[in-house]
Amino acid sequence: MVHEEVEETAADIAEMEIRGAATIARAAADALRTQAHESEADSPEAFREELRAAARRLHETRPTAVSLPNALRYVLRGMEGDSVVDLRASVVETVEEFEAELDVAQENLGQVGANRLRDGDTVMTHCHSTDALSCVKAALEDGKEISAVVKETRPRKQGHITARQLREWGVDVTLVVDNAARRYLDDVDHVLVGADSIAADGSVVNKIGTSGLAVNARERGVPVMVAAQTLKLHPDTLTGHTVEIEMRDESEVLTESERADIAAGDDPEDPGLTVENPAFDVTPPRYVDAIVTERGQFPPESIVTLMRELYGGGTTEPWAKQE
Amino acid sequence: MVHEEVEETAADIAEMEIRGAATIARAAADALRTQAHESEADSPEAFREELRAAARRLHETRPTAVSLPNALRYVLRGMEGDSVVDLRASVVETVEEFEAELDVAQENLGQVGANRLRDGDTVMTHCHSTDALSCVKAALEDGKEISAVVKETRPRKQGHITARQLREWGVDVTLVVDNAARRYLDDVDHVLVGADSIAADGSVVNKIGTSGLAVNARERGVPVMVAAQTLKLHPDTLTGHTVEIEMRDESEVLTESERADIAAGDDPEDPGLTVENPAFDVTPPRYVDAIVTERGQFPPESIVTLMRELYGGGTTEPWAKQE
Amino acid sequence: MVHEEVEETAADIAEMEIRGAATIARAAADALRTQAHESEADSPEAFREELRAAARRLHETRPTAVSLPNALRYVLRGMEGDSVVDLRASVVETVEEFEAELDVAQENLGQVGANRLRDGDTVMTHCHSTDALSCVKAALEDGKEISAVVKETRPRKQGHITARQLREWGVDVTLVVDNAARRYLDDVDHVLVGADSIAADGSVVNKIGTSGLAVNARERGVPVMVAAQTLKLHPDTLTGHTVEIEMRDESEVLTESERADIAAGDDPEDPGLTVENPAFDVTPPRYVDAIVTERGQFPPESIVTLMRELYGGGTTEPWAKQE
Amino acid sequence: MVHEEVEETAADIAEMEIRGAATIARAAADALRTQAHESEADSPEAFREELRAAARRLHETRPTAVSLPNALRYVLRGMEGDSVVDLRASVVETVEEFEAELDVAQENLGQVGANRLRDGDTVMTHCHSTDALSCVKAALEDGKEISAVVKETRPRKQGHITARQLREWGVDVTLVVDNAARRYLDDVDHVLVGADSIAADGSVVNKIGTSGLAVNARERGVPVMVAAQTLKLHPDTLTGHTVEIEMRDESEVLTESERADIAAGDDPEDPGLTVENPAFDVTPPRYVDAIVTERGQFPPESIVTLMRELYGGGTTEPWAKQE
Amino acid sequence: MVHEEVEETAADIAEMEIRGAATIARAAADALRTQAHESEADSPEAFREELRAAARRLHETRPTAVSLPNALRYVLRGMEGDSVVDLRASVVETVEEFEAELDVAQENLGQVGANRLRDGDTVMTHCHSTDALSCVKAALEDGKEISAVVKETRPRKQGHITARQLREWGVDVTLVVDNAARRYLDDVDHVLVGADSIAADGSVVNKIGTSGLAVNARERGVPVMVAAQTLKLHPDTLTGHTVEIEMRDESEVLTESERADIAAGDDPEDPGLTVENPAFDVTPPRYVDAIVTERGQFPPESIVTLMRELYGGGTTEPWAKQE
Amino acid sequence: MVHEEVEETAADIAEMEIRGAATIARAAADALRTQAHESEADSPEAFREELRAAARRLHETRPTAVSLPNALRYVLRGMEGDSVVDLRASVVETVEEFEAELDVAQENLGQVGANRLRDGDTVMTHCHSTDALSCVKAALEDGKEISAVVKETRPRKQGHITARQLREWGVDVTLVVDNAARRYLDDVDHVLVGADSIAADGSVVNKIGTSGLAVNARERGVPVMVAAQTLKLHPDTLTGHTVEIEMRDESEVLTESERADIAAGDDPEDPGLTVENPAFDVTPPRYVDAIVTERGQFPPESIVTLMRELYGGGTTEPWAKQE
Repeated sequence: MVHEEVEETAADIAEMEIRGAATIARAAADALRTQAHESEADSPEAFREELRAAARRLHETRPTAVSLPNALRYVLRGMEGDSVVDLRASVVETVEEFEAELDVAQENLGQVGANRLRDGDTVMTHCHSTDALSCVKAALEDGKEISAVVKETRPRKQGHITARQLREWGVDVTLVVDNAARRYLDDVDHVLVGADSIAADGSVVNKIGTSGLAVNARERGVPVMVAAQTLKLHPDTLTGHTVEIEMRDESEVLTESERADIAAGDDPEDPGLTVENPAFDVTPPRYVDAIVTERGQFPPESIVTLMRELYGGGTTEPWAKQE
Repeated sequence: MVHEEVEETAADIAEMEIRGAATIARAAADALRTQAHESEADSPEAFREELRAAARRLHETRPTAVSLPNALRYVLRGMEGDSVVDLRASVVETVEEFEAELDVAQENLGQVGANRLRDGDTVMTHCHSTDALSCVKAALEDGKEISAVVKETRPRKQGHITARQLREWGVDVTLVVDNAARRYLDDVDHVLVGADSIAADGSVVNKIGTSGLAVNARERGVPVMVAAQTLKLHPDTLTGHTVEIEMRDESEVLTESERADIAAGDDPEDPGLTVENPAFDVTPPRYVDAIVTERGQFPPESIVTLMRELYGGGTTEPWAKQE
Repeated sequence: MVHEEVEETAADIAEMEIRGAATIARAAADALRTQAHESEADSPEAFREELRAAARRLHETRPTAVSLPNALRYVLRGMEGDSVVDLRASVVETVEEFEAELDVAQENLGQVGANRLRDGDTVMTHCHSTDALSCVKAALEDGKEISAVVKETRPRKQGHITARQLREWGVDVTLVVDNAARRYLDDVDHVLVGADSIAADGSVVNKIGTSGLAVNARERGVPVMVAAQTLKLHPDTLTGHTVEIEMRDESEVLTESERADIAAGDDPEDPGLTVENPAFDVTPPRYVDAIVTERGQFPPESIVTLMRELYGGGTTEPWAKQE
Repeated sequence: MVHEEVEETAADIAEMEIRGAATIARAAADALRTQAHESEADSPEAFREELRAAARRLHETRPTAVSLPNALRYVLRGMEGDSVVDLRASVVETVEEFEAELDVAQENLGQVGANRLRDGDTVMTHCHSTDALSCVKAALEDGKEISAVVKETRPRKQGHITARQLREWGVDVTLVVDNAARRYLDDVDHVLVGADSIAADGSVVNKIGTSGLAVNARERGVPVMVAAQTLKLHPDTLTGHTVEIEMRDESEVLTESERADIAAGDDPEDPGLTVENPAFDVTPPRYVDAIVTERGQFPPESIVTLMRELYGGGTTEPWAKQE
Repeated sequence: MVHEEVEETAADIAEMEIRGAATIARAAADALRTQAHESEADSPEAFREELRAAARRLHETRPTAVSLPNALRYVLRGMEGDSVVDLRASVVETVEEFEAELDVAQENLGQVGANRLRDGDTVMTHCHSTDALSCVKAALEDGKEISAVVKETRPRKQGHITARQLREWGVDVTLVVDNAARRYLDDVDHVLVGADSIAADGSVVNKIGTSGLAVNARERGVPVMVAAQTLKLHPDTLTGHTVEIEMRDESEVLTESERADIAAGDDPEDPGLTVENPAFDVTPPRYVDAIVTERGQFPPESIVTLMRELYGGGTTEPWAKQE
Repeated sequence: MVHEEVEETAADIAEMEIRGAATIARAAADALRTQAHESEADSPEAFREELRAAARRLHETRPTAVSLPNALRYVLRGMEGDSVVDLRASVVETVEEFEAELDVAQENLGQVGANRLRDGDTVMTHCHSTDALSCVKAALEDGKEISAVVKETRPRKQGHITARQLREWGVDVTLVVDNAARRYLDDVDHVLVGADSIAADGSVVNKIGTSGLAVNARERGVPVMVAAQTLKLHPDTLTGHTVEIEMRDESEVLTESERADIAAGDDPEDPGLTVENPAFDVTPPRYVDAIVTERGQFPPESIVTLMRELYGGGTTEPWAKQE
């Protein structure tokens, strides 16, 4: 029943041929549109079930990718009508609306965030986030002068990418190691970070090191601003699920020879040296001053309202099979 | 008037042939003993001035090394008597006392610190400090089981040295990048660090990153324990001087090619990219729970008392020329 | 006009024959259904007024019981239609919906809350709350191992009931006096409590001692989780009313002879010894990390949104007489 | 060599025939005086060793009683002279001085503490402490009106003793359960407690529940005042030892039948129910505003200075055998 | 197209003949009603555009007055219908509804706020706010006894107006200078202030000095209550705009002669003395306990929900020209 | 027995002909020198008692002036010798030493404090303090550029005096009302204030408004630096006395006509309007980062050590009559 092209998209997502929050979301919406176009369902009920089946198929490919269920929820919530014709039209229209919003989301977010930056301000960044940088870009386009203190963000040093981007825009950059962050907090006006996902209680899941930075920022009185498209809102957390944190490979932290050097006498069966390399940490809402989205800025505690507005508040998944 | 061997020691310290807080302190004390032995002064006044001159000579070589003035103060304060013979004897005796204390200081400190560690505790370390590790060693020798979460401590990764030492002692080690510290604070019982120097108000000058760690530790309720021999107490701060922070080379942070990559279009005359690489930061006393020395443990606010006891509270330098 | 069976229910609630938040709610809904069934109203207006009268009658019996107005609001909000027949049907349907939700609320709440508990976690409890325990139960059923530190909760020692229940489920229990709570906070992963009621600003009214525990938990970095069915949301606080705190009898605190012993010489007319025994205290929202309900978990500041969704945001009472 | 009467005193202390901080201190001082009087030592060295031996004997009886080593240190530090006659005289004189101070210590402490209480103030107490009550008494004698909120202090309810004493003095008393403490903090001007002992870093070891109360008091802005004679300063902590916390019998918390009821199905070999009943907890210095002693009031961080003044700062015990 | 009377109202607002948040709002609503009444539009589209044009005209007069766009949004959102007749009727009805609410808003707000004040409470006020005073008035009418500590509120001393009003109502008043506020916080039960406007994240823009008072109140544990009609909610902040702070004339702070005296030797071209006199400051939501409106009380973090309910959540202005 | 010139000085102090902390101290020391010079005592005992009697006479004139007992204690502690001749010489010498220190104290303090100010720093001042300004002066003389935000300090506006002095030195000044302080804290590097007196626990008694400013400074992460000569250390607080706060005349706050306007209908016998105008408030030590004296800088918690060093730690007054 699920259309062949949907199957292909599902396979591509599963194999990570399609990756990146926005790209996955767009592909999933496209697939649902294809399913709607190509459907041969002969009753509204059959059509609806077909669409839900397609959504189920897509969802199971990477159940932890936050933008995937968001795209599916958005489209299924827009499906309405009493005939197959109407249902199909509504799906197509909703997909178009969704993608149109996606097209301008980062730019709109940038404009919202730029309102928080005043001429002459200095921001401190952690990791690399195009959402966060879009706020700086919009502020520069408004003619404001902005400088940046860029944390290198071990172990993968994404701070280098951020620094290069900012230099291309002519922003003065001071690069510091992560350990030096607190010392430079007195010189900055904002901590500006992105997010991997945002939970219903306003907790921000982002690159490891964000929470420690946020605690120090609060202690120094520097506001913390998180830039995240609404695509990053984590729908499952509405039903009380906690976000799981990925552990990355230890080779990002230690080379083989460094490990050998440190643990020379270790029993390979029962090594006393462990390297833990979590990809993300969780910043509690009380350390975040504003979450900037393409739909305005929010205190973290209110993000639950936006989440319900966009993705509904039900405790069931809209693609669940009807009995 | 200053003896040739003193001049040699002074030159060696200046050229960093002699380095390390304890080694410098010992060499300076030795030099004063030599000066006392070889003195041909014919009056107590002349002898005293000779010793002060030697101290001045030694002090001017590296005025920011904290252990150097401490050694000089200690010896000059012990110089007493009404005749050259008595003065010489007192200097020799004080040098011996000073060096005897130096011999056992780290071990004593370790025993004091070990009292704070209970069987089964986990410590989190930052950078590499033999004073800090001596507390773990003494605890292990008391039969306690200790584990460690070791921060790698960018940019120079001294955490690797700490990890290797702990593994040699059979301690279970979990190595994490600096950004991951806050996440692991919930699993540890103590933050255990050393100190480059300690100011009169109990502020701890230590490897960059210490202060940010301490703020997070306080927020998570984990006590912060600083291990530092009294040699690290900064005498000048008694008179209100603030401690200057050394800036290290940017090559520790960025390779040449990384820099070129980031700042491709920069005007070499007026580069928009700066790399700041401070060696140390300052942890305010309110984030430190205990300073462990070979003379017992102290809350940071009481360190001024110990400092006055050891090095006197005068606002003048004991090697100053008398008018 | 109010049906005889409604009167009986009202009497039973007033005399506390019917007690317990859920039992009262169910009885009130049943009574409204009866009123609808038996109504002889000859116009929609008359029917509506009859139902409102029944609600008024029920409400006045125990105006401070939080679940009672919630049940009444829920049913009256569901009453709709242009004819008596339609109105009656809508009331019956709404009552059924309400009771069906009530049937599964605690179990659903338990599943939501269990998501916050990880395998191996230890919870600290205060007083006895079946909502709170349902989270532990669901976690156990998921195969997680949970331990508990149980505060005895003077003066009525409801901690004993909690301990017995947990032991029946095989949970390892450590019982401590209330004064020992802070010492054991370092060993626990969650503070888990129920609620007597929850105000619109997210304040939690619960057994006396909860707020002090929450302040200590925040200081030690332990998250506080409040388990409360939506029935406990306090509707009057939406209109700005504060929650009144019941004072219980002093005999729960002192026996007669203890009192006599302490206040031997007191003038019975003007005693210098007062025993104050408030049943509840109020924990401000900033000390609560999550409120777990059967409809998902919420930061306390967002509870107002849920409250409006369920019980409407009007400033008038739906059972008020129409003029 | 140790005199028979000293042996008897040692036995009485060991068997807890002699108990209470002040009583033990006095008995130990008396014993050293007897030893000095009765000594037949024929050289100053022999006399000194005899006194040290007596002190060793007394000390080993209850090595954790804080007043015992304090008394011994005080007397041994006062022993001086070049002849047996002079040494004996100095011991006798020091013992008299020590006991004279002991006689007036609590009264002096009360006067110091009363200065912090203003007319009309209300104090909140925890447990029973004659040192703490002496401050109230002195304030009453100064004509100030004082009221009290008395926490009952489970499990042993020493609050009843405090309440009775205060009523005898005509103080208005409000008795509350421990759980109600935070609610009443808004009505009080001081938290006033005693101490079991005080560590060199200003930590206050006192009846379990003190630290939780102190954290809440800080949060409500109520100053915490600890009344403790200098006899309570813990000399061993100067050398880095941590204070051990006594675990008391579980029967203070649960009756046999309560236990049976809770843990009906437990395997007696591997019970799942533990009752932990620590006698004391440790309040970190940052939650204490003032420590009131008979020698003035001190911020907790300065107590180390007083400790060194009274008992010396050496890392060795004065009764240690000389080699 | 814009009616002459609308033009007149616009002119009066621009020239501040019409001033005060409520008065401006009412005048704007009246003008839209006039426009609707007098419209000669011959199609629904033309009518709609006429109303939008009138709103645009009114809005541009004082784009920073917070109540003006709120009134316009409220009326335009209520405009609906498929014919000119229906549209006109809907506008008239909406204006009436809006004004009826305005009539009772302050009184309703007062009743909501009075619920937070208990008999015998003392409030501390800052500046002069009729919304804030309406809470006291309602409490007095409920028979509660209320006292006040009134801050004089430099530089314009609006505290005098507040004090006079409270004295007329018979309230006991203690007047203090702003510097004395913290000292009197221990004697008060609430800080009670109004607001100039309230941003979407719950930040309170109010008379300069409010934020410093709020920080001290939090430190002393005194709750901060902000009274503000929903007219004060700042609609532009929903789209991420920050509120601009007006700088007032320096003559409110310094007389000419005081200035001359202080800056005697200054170069008039490049004076070294600046007087800054901002009218308002911004209190972050974490220092505010409740915002009291005529629609109930809210934690500051939830105000965004109310704002969306009343004024919609769109990112465009309802009076924007349609293309 | 007390010399006539001493009597005259006493009278001048009592009548406030002699005022200002340093001037009073110097006059008191002069008077004791006169007494020593002119003494006709024929025994050391008589001489000592004569000096104590003179000190008693001087002390009783203004028992609350903090510098007066400090001067007396300093001189009496220096009195030593076995003959009248020696005693007289020691008094004269001590007075000279005291006055020599007084001569340079403020300048030395300035140099200590200047070490905390870096080139380019901005300080915020409250009230007018020559000790505080001496730090700025010394920094300027070191070639550092310093700017200032000056609070006007109602009710007496001593900020104007500070602003004028700073302008004379060429310092850029921004004058703000007290209410605006928090808003400008983000632009300053230090809060710099003087002190009326400093208590043994490090509490700073200073112009009303200091404590509120300090709390806000801590919240914004701005360090608070208190400049105070050791003459301001409050000796009585060593024995536990609290510092009394003077209430100043209400005419500083309200003119007669302003009062009449506010309290038009008040019963003159029982006025409902009170004006409270305390001169000072108490800043708890935890909000103070450093106390800068002419003998170095100290954390507030260590000030007790300095106090004991300078003025002794005894609980009796050195001028007390001997029995």
